[in-house]
Formats: sequence, C-alpha cells, structure tokens
Amino acid sequence: MSQLTTHASAVPLLERYRQFLPITAQTPIVTLHEGNTPLINVPRLAAHLGVRELWLKLESMNPTGSFKDRGMVMAIAKALEAGSKAVVCASTGNTSAAAAAYAARMGMECVVVVPAGKIALGKLAQALMYGAKLLVIEGNFDQALDMVRVLAEQHPITLVNSVNPYRLEGQATAAYEICDVLGDAPDYLALPVGNAGNISAYWMGFKRYYEAHRSESLPKILGFEATGSAAIVRGEPIAYPETVATAIRIGNPASWHLAVNARDESEGTIDHVSDEEILAAWRDLSALEGVFCEPASAAGVAGIRKLLASGSIDPNGRFVAVITGHGLKDPQLAVEQFSVPQAIPAELSAVVAALNL
Amino acid sequence: MSQLTTHASAVPLLERYRQFLPITAQTPIVTLHEGNTPLINVPRLAAHLGVRELWLKLESMNPTGSFKDRGMVMAIAKALEAGSKAVVCASTGNTSAAAAAYAARMGMECVVVVPAGKIALGKLAQALMYGAKLLVIEGNFDQALDMVRVLAEQHPITLVNSVNPYRLEGQATAAYEICDVLGDAPDYLALPVGNAGNISAYWMGFKRYYEAHRSESLPKILGFEATGSAAIVRGEPIAYPETVATAIRIGNPASWHLAVNARDESEGTIDHVSDEEILAAWRDLSALEGVFCEPASAAGVAGIRKLLASGSIDPNGRFVAVITGHGLKDPQLAVEQFSVPQAIPAELSAVVAALNL
Repeated sequence: MSQLTTHASAVPLLERYRQFLPITAQTPIVTLHEGNTPLINVPRLAAHLGVRELWLKLESMNPTGSFKDRGMVMAIAKALEAGSKAVVCASTGNTSAAAAAYAARMGMECVVVVPAGKIALGKLAQALMYGAKLLVIEGNFDQALDMVRVLAEQHPITLVNSVNPYRLEGQATAAYEICDVLGDAPDYLALPVGNAGNISAYWMGFKRYYEAHRSESLPKILGFEATGSAAIVRGEPIAYPETVATAIRIGNPASWHLAVNARDESEGTIDHVSDEEILAAWRDLSALEGVFCEPASAAGVAGIRKLLASGSIDPNGRFVAVITGHGLKDPQLAVEQFSVPQAIPAELSAVVAALNL
Repeated sequence: MSQLTTHASAVPLLERYRQFLPITAQTPIVTLHEGNTPLINVPRLAAHLGVRELWLKLESMNPTGSFKDRGMVMAIAKALEAGSKAVVCASTGNTSAAAAAYAARMGMECVVVVPAGKIALGKLAQALMYGAKLLVIEGNFDQALDMVRVLAEQHPITLVNSVNPYRLEGQATAAYEICDVLGDAPDYLALPVGNAGNISAYWMGFKRYYEAHRSESLPKILGFEATGSAAIVRGEPIAYPETVATAIRIGNPASWHLAVNARDESEGTIDHVSDEEILAAWRDLSALEGVFCEPASAAGVAGIRKLLASGSIDPNGRFVAVITGHGLKDPQLAVEQFSVPQAIPAELSAVVAALNL
C-alpha cells in the first residue's frame, strides 16, 4: 500500500480487489476512499413496495457523490502507470467531477470539453473546483466526444470517457462488495440504465466472482431506462432523449450490446419507467428511509415496483437496488417540489394548531 | 445488532462505540451508515502548507453530508428509547437535514421551525425531501428556538437542537475514530468553530479515550472562527455575524464555555481566519487533493496556515484537520468562482492551441 493509504478499516479499493483488477506491480494505488459503500437494509421501503427483502447499495456515498469514482480511480491509476500527465473527457456531469477529483489528487491536469449552448455551471462546479480546465467548443456533444478521442490519440493525454476500458473494470467492484456483504449474490439486482456501462460492469463483476467461487449464484439483472430515453427497450437510438432523470438522459447508449448481453445471460429484464414513476420512488427513498439520491438513482426502485405489479418477479426474492448518485448533485428538482408555507405567529398556540397536536 | 445493521465491514456507529456512549439495552441501534469516515493523508496539501504530516477527517462523507449525523443518530436513538414519536428543531441547515433523515429512517415525524424572511429553500431541500414538516414563524431565529424549546417541554416531542445533550456524545465518536486509525491522538486537531459544539465534543472524546487508555496522548485543539463572527476570540457576542462560511456564521455560540475549556485544557488556540483565508484553503483542498467541502470546512486548514506563519505551532507535528461538510451542500459559491469561457471552433488545432500543447 502506498502512502496514500489511510483508513485502517478500509483498504483502498484498488488494493482490496487487486486480483480482480488489471493491476500490476507498477500500478499506483490511487485513492480518495472510494468504494466500500454502504449496503443498507430498508425494511420500510420493502414493505411499501411489497417485497420481503430489499437492500440499497449507496453508491451516492462515493467521494464525489456518484458511482463514477470506482471506474475513475482505476482509469487514473492506469493513466499514471502509462506515464500520462493529463486526462480528458467530454462530460457535463458526474464523469467530469470524478475525473477532475482524481486528477487533482494525483497532480495531473484534467481537461473537460463540453459543447457550447446550454451550459449549466452548477453541473460543472465540482469539476471546476477540482481544478479542471474547461473547453467549450462550437458543436454538439458528439463533436465534443470526437474531439477528445482525436486529442487523446495524438497527444500524451488519456481519454477517460466510458470508452476507456478501465472504467468498467473499476465499476465491477461494486458487485464484489455486494457479494462480500451478503455472502452471495442477491436474487435480483435493479439499477438505472443510461449509457449502459454500469449494468454491464455489474454483470461482468457478478460473473467473475461466481467463476472465482466467491459467490454461489448469479443475480437476475433488472435495468431501467427512463421512458423518454428508452433506446434499448425500443430497439433504436433516440435522437432527442427526454427525462427528468438527467443522469440517464441518453439516446444512444455506448454499452448497448453489453447491456443486452447482461440482460439475456442473467435472464433478467431491461424495461422503462416513466418520470412520474421515477419521482414517486425518489420521494419514497427520502421520506421512508432517509436516502436522498439523484432522480435517476430512483429508477431501480421504480422498476421493481413496476415489475411487481406485472407479476414478472418474485416478491420473496432478495433484492438489491443501486443508488447511483447523491441527491445533493441535483438539488434543483428537490427545491421545486416545495413551497414556503404561510408564516404563523410566534406563539405556542399557533404552532400547536399548525401541528394538530 | 438490529436488522438495520447492514454493512459487514462497518458495524453501526452506536454499536462500535457503545461503551463510550449513553447506550442501554433498550437503546435501538439506529443507522444510516454514519461515521467510519475517511481519514486521508494529504501530502500535496501538507507540502503546500509546509507541514510534515497532514490528515483530513472527511466528515463530509456522512450520509446527509455533514458531521451532524454522528450526533443526530445518538439523539434519535435516545428519543426512540424514551418513547418519542416526533422530533423538532429550529435550523435552516445541516442540523435539519440530519434530523429529518434519521427521523424518516425510523418512521418518526420531524418538525423544522424557521423564522420568516429570507428562507433559502435550497438549504432546506434536504430536510423537506426527507419528509420534514416546515413551520415558518413570524419572528427571528431566537424566537424560533424558544418556540421549539417550549414545544418540546409541553408535548411528547424531542428537541434535537444542540441543547440536546446526546448530540455532543455522538459527535465525540469522531475523536475515537481518529485515534483508532492513527494508533494515537494527533499532535494537533484543527477545526472550524461556529456554535462551538463540535470542538467541545472532540475534546471530550479525546479525553475519554485517553482516560480509557485507548490513546497515549492528547492533542492540542486549534479552533478557528470566521473573522466576521469571531465571538469567542473577541470575547463578546456579535449581533450581526458575517462570513461567507455560512455554517459557522454564528454570533453567540451555544457551547462557548465548553470550547474555551477545550482550548485551555488542551493548551491549544481559538483564533480567527478571514473569508479570504477560508476561500484560499477551500480552493486548495479541491485543487490539490480532490476534496470539495463546504467553505466553513476549510477554516481548519486556513487556520493551520495562519498559525504556521506566526510560528506558534510546530510544522513537524502530526496534524488532523476536520472537514465538516460536503461541498455539494453549498454549490452556489463554487459556481460564482467561475465563468463560461469563450467557445472555440470544433477543430483539433483550436483545441490544441487552447491547451498550449
């Protein structure tokens, strides 16, 4: 372990699962204390949905607030191993935050390329605070992605978008952790599907652990796209994807075929959930269990509810739903749910009346 | 351990330190997986400041994003033990978020009372999402606090503001964790001082661990108020406290005397740092180590820099700085640091030129 190893009870992710990761003697053990995220039992939400046993994998508790940290720590470590001094990505959200944080930690430069137009600085605030250099190009997102690919090919800069193969390797560690805590894989793993990398990484991880005899079974994978951006469900790319769940508003998933493979091999399902279903699950997670997540993160729970209603899954199974990002990543939608109530007099009788005591 | 115990590698906080906490056989082991937060070594920031060894205690990695979760889990557990069905607090920030999250988790009602006027829903979004009932009263913050005190005295509702004695008991666990990871107390513990409860809780914790022979030394406590709200440093309450670090914008700290005691017994210091010093440290934490925190959380690091310049602390000592809350709690200030750069053509030559490659 390097000098960056820090927390006695939590060996760095890359160290803990090194035998399942592309780590060599030369790979630096980068860490911001990612992974080892809580797997919490949620009996109140389970009862509300009508399942016997439900756990949440709180990937929202990673250092930058999303599951992206698992893949990024691996990508940054391999970039360093290869002698790279800078990383680049085209991203306006969680990927850029994770890339910039790990680059900062290791003294590397991070370049974030985004298309001109509707740039929400709030989404980029994390990356900018971590010291990323922001480049705005005249063009759309696909052009930004093309640009960073060419840049990485022709210069000593590592591309850390999802085409970087180390990202999925790192993300697979979440499956290992679930098996380690439960003693086996669950019956069902439910999660949101956007770019489809995460569903693919989980399935890869569960299979590897099973093949290494670290688990005795494989889960059925239940992936859920938002209805307005359900490319895989519809079987065709969607030119103008729409959903309130911005983290999965993707019309042409990069890991499409891997995701379909995960669904088929696991005998699972990829289905879609409406914005209304997503928001209802999002509110339930907060109000019933004290778990405030990004709206997209609620798609797994929304999907379990939908499949239960259709009778296609067994309510007596053991369910794990992946909570991919923290609610503080996207507080605006939360704010919009509420209004300030009328003020009441600062008198006990008024307060008691307002509370129906 | 109750059925809410969930994560193999992390026994719930109340269970892990139960011998140091006011826990009885009847106390429910409430948990959202609080505590067990990272203590990370930050060599780049240490070199930048000019100290040999610096660690950050990332309390920002608690479930609701701040150190308040440690005290709140204890307060909620004791409220449940006492048969309470609801909790109340006067708070517009981290306290209300923590109270509402743990109340939601345990199926209790949570009432948040705030004064009318400038109500930032963004600050309250977390509490509201967790299902808290918001009461707005005509009056100021002191009147809101008086109101919740009377309400809790006359009704079966538990007050969970900082006057609740279990809050500090829970917060003391952070000191235990630091000693457990380092093998002893550090030479110096640096942290922000607002309401002064946290500095008091850390000192209580370090003393208890020392007395129980779990550590061999005691740290010097270095507390830092913001210059515009430095009541303890000035020796008098400040009617209109002002600082960019909103979490410590408090003019009359509730735990004033305990904090002074912690300073004097530990042979430490309570000093003040300017907004400029706080913001410089806040940017350094992000850009040098990938740690994005609330502005107030940077006061400890800013203070270490100030005391080093004055020669009053030993740069060869072992330092721990407490990062009290996550940067995503207050992203607005981060956004304000940056502007969107001019767009450049989507051509490699333009990108290469912009990056000085």
